[in-house]
Amino acid sequence: MQEINAISSDSHLSGIRFKMDIKQENYNQSNSVGIVDTQYLNIEDKIKLENGIDFGPLTIAYETYGELNKTKDNALLVLHALSGDAHAAGYNSPEEKKPGWWDDLIGPGKAFDTNKYFVISSNFLGGCKGTTGPSSINPETGKPYGTSFPVITIEDMVKLQKKLLDFLGIEKFIVAGGSMGGMQAIEWTINYPEMIKSTIIIASTSRLSAQGIAFNEVGRNAIIYDPNWNNGNYYETQTPPSSGLSIARMIGHITYLSEESMHEKFGRRLQDKKDLDFNFDVNFQVESYLRYQGKSFVDRFDANSYLYITKAMDYFDIPQKYGSLMKAFKNAKSKFLVISFNSDWLFPSSQSKEIVKALMKIDKEVTYCELDTPYGHDAFLLEYEQQTKIIKSFLKEDK
Amino acid sequence: MQEINAISSDSHLSGIRFKMDIKQENYNQSNSVGIVDTQYLNIEDKIKLENGIDFGPLTIAYETYGELNKTKDNALLVLHALSGDAHAAGYNSPEEKKPGWWDDLIGPGKAFDTNKYFVISSNFLGGCKGTTGPSSINPETGKPYGTSFPVITIEDMVKLQKKLLDFLGIEKFIVAGGSMGGMQAIEWTINYPEMIKSTIIIASTSRLSAQGIAFNEVGRNAIIYDPNWNNGNYYETQTPPSSGLSIARMIGHITYLSEESMHEKFGRRLQDKKDLDFNFDVNFQVESYLRYQGKSFVDRFDANSYLYITKAMDYFDIPQKYGSLMKAFKNAKSKFLVISFNSDWLFPSSQSKEIVKALMKIDKEVTYCELDTPYGHDAFLLEYEQQTKIIKSFLKEDK
Repeated sequence: MQEINAISSDSHLSGIRFKMDIKQENYNQSNSVGIVDTQYLNIEDKIKLENGIDFGPLTIAYETYGELNKTKDNALLVLHALSGDAHAAGYNSPEEKKPGWWDDLIGPGKAFDTNKYFVISSNFLGGCKGTTGPSSINPETGKPYGTSFPVITIEDMVKLQKKLLDFLGIEKFIVAGGSMGGMQAIEWTINYPEMIKSTIIIASTSRLSAQGIAFNEVGRNAIIYDPNWNNGNYYETQTPPSSGLSIARMIGHITYLSEESMHEKFGRRLQDKKDLDFNFDVNFQVESYLRYQGKSFVDRFDANSYLYITKAMDYFDIPQKYGSLMKAFKNAKSKFLVISFNSDWLFPSSQSKEIVKALMKIDKEVTYCELDTPYGHDAFLLEYEQQTKIIKSFLKEDK
Repeated sequence: MQEINAISSDSHLSGIRFKMDIKQENYNQSNSVGIVDTQYLNIEDKIKLENGIDFGPLTIAYETYGELNKTKDNALLVLHALSGDAHAAGYNSPEEKKPGWWDDLIGPGKAFDTNKYFVISSNFLGGCKGTTGPSSINPETGKPYGTSFPVITIEDMVKLQKKLLDFLGIEKFIVAGGSMGGMQAIEWTINYPEMIKSTIIIASTSRLSAQGIAFNEVGRNAIIYDPNWNNGNYYETQTPPSSGLSIARMIGHITYLSEESMHEKFGRRLQDKKDLDFNFDVNFQVESYLRYQGKSFVDRFDANSYLYITKAMDYFDIPQKYGSLMKAFKNAKSKFLVISFNSDWLFPSSQSKEIVKALMKIDKEVTYCELDTPYGHDAFLLEYEQQTKIIKSFLKEDK
């Protein structure tokens, strides 16, 4: 545990409040993977999607950290969530202020130790960060797909990632993902049991709840009702449905935080004023935060991708697809680590426990941890000290 | 308890699922208040709003059920929530399919027994159901107020209700309200302590949480971002911001239900189909429900009212306004009944307990019940059998 304490350093002790400052640490510090380029793999074949369509050609955006060993058996695939991308660790340039989304967990000596592992991260199918998605050019028309993009599933995302692993010549590896990344980790383990040594599922579920579908549906409606959405054709006019996407993101942000963390962060504190001013401007800090989150998201995300990705989440239902969770995991060869957070109400612990119970019933090796944290669903990105200890301990047995 | 069981009848046993059928019961049955007219009181004076503005003239829409006795001491004021109106019980016409919003609790032999009490219900200031609000005509311009309507507070709503009670010649009465109606009940008790005999606060709070403000803010943004909102000027063009209001209502509905009741009602059941159809139409029943709730709301509610009323909820903060809850209730003369629901995550039990603890510390007479129900915040409208027993028992001592 000494090692972990040394790595986490005092700057981490104060938690979420100083997250912004921490992120401005230098890219060349000893526990950073440093400067990383995003790479692109073009795949000329088509892949058969779950809806029966043969779809391609395709591009995959990915990054790697650490070195692949000669026997090619030290790979670890990390899988991102709804708004993530291939850039999981390090910096894409010395000017970049903020490192990759899981930089706290990926690097020399960190949970996913790049001294030991060759860590791979790829943007998923349907996204807007380099891998083929609705904003990509359809080679048949020379125009962006828009809503002519096929409806895809989590299994389809994994099928495309398989092409990347094949290209890299990796036959056996570890998968790890949080939230929707955990859904992909589950599909990997079920669909390619021979390839997966260990499966790490964090703050995830084997199927989205009715409440989860409901929040996604409201977000999609906000986009679709925005006149600028224009049936998904907004790329040429450069007038995307920013209002709708911003509303969708604001809804998302409420669900990512726990009531406790929202209270801690904002309470009922007023924004830059002492008294209520009786108008419809921002009055409370929480309003300012949400408006900022909504607005900054539209600069970096595509509204059509939001529609397709949330639909893939809604469709994800392992027990329904395989008859039961036990049947689904029957052929799995990996050992499992499942982590949930007690304040996560979007992907509550009860859903992780369902997975754990099913795995135990069919005698799979499974470790389960429910972490005590106020950070809600976002904890999979924030609560890295506790996660680091657990993941390191779980991976220690890996040779 | 015999009486209650007889009233509730077998049709109630199956709960929420048959609510729609129950509501189609005949208006002339023995426990209905029958046909009721909404009445209107015009007030020529101005009232001084909390923001310092003198505002008027004003109209109040209200209904009454039962008879006011000669000594005028059997009055009971019920206070409605965000989307409610003066029509709390009975039917406005023989053709009306659905009775008033609290018909399950108001009527002969019911919790608010109209054989005993003269029950009053009035639409609050800022609404769109007959009492002056943003869609009312400003007599100075001959046009609807729109956003020239002043920002109002819960205290302002109560100040206007006071005019109605004065007009009716009632000096002492009982107040009862759920959700935002509970906020009004609290303000009544604090502002007019000599007038209130008993205070019934259901599924409410002394201040909205950061999460509550956040949900309201997203709903308001959905309206304001809708191009049809047009800075609140949409009455003349008859093109209201229906999309934005519909999104706001969908968000609201998610927060009114518990995860459990959503799961019970919808689970992951598909809507009118056996398999996923890989498109963006409605796939799941929960999506269909939310779209219906959103669309039906826009036919009966004004978007500007939604902005003003949610702002009044956000501004409501009794501990901040009076220094503490104990200071706030110091001069109260009433006895209290506080009811919360264990699955209500919008106005959680912890917030009711804060009120109860403060009242106990200053030696007020208070009864508190946390009811076990799956219905979430909506339980104040649905869980009437349990509420009836508690309210009847609480009111029994009233002479």
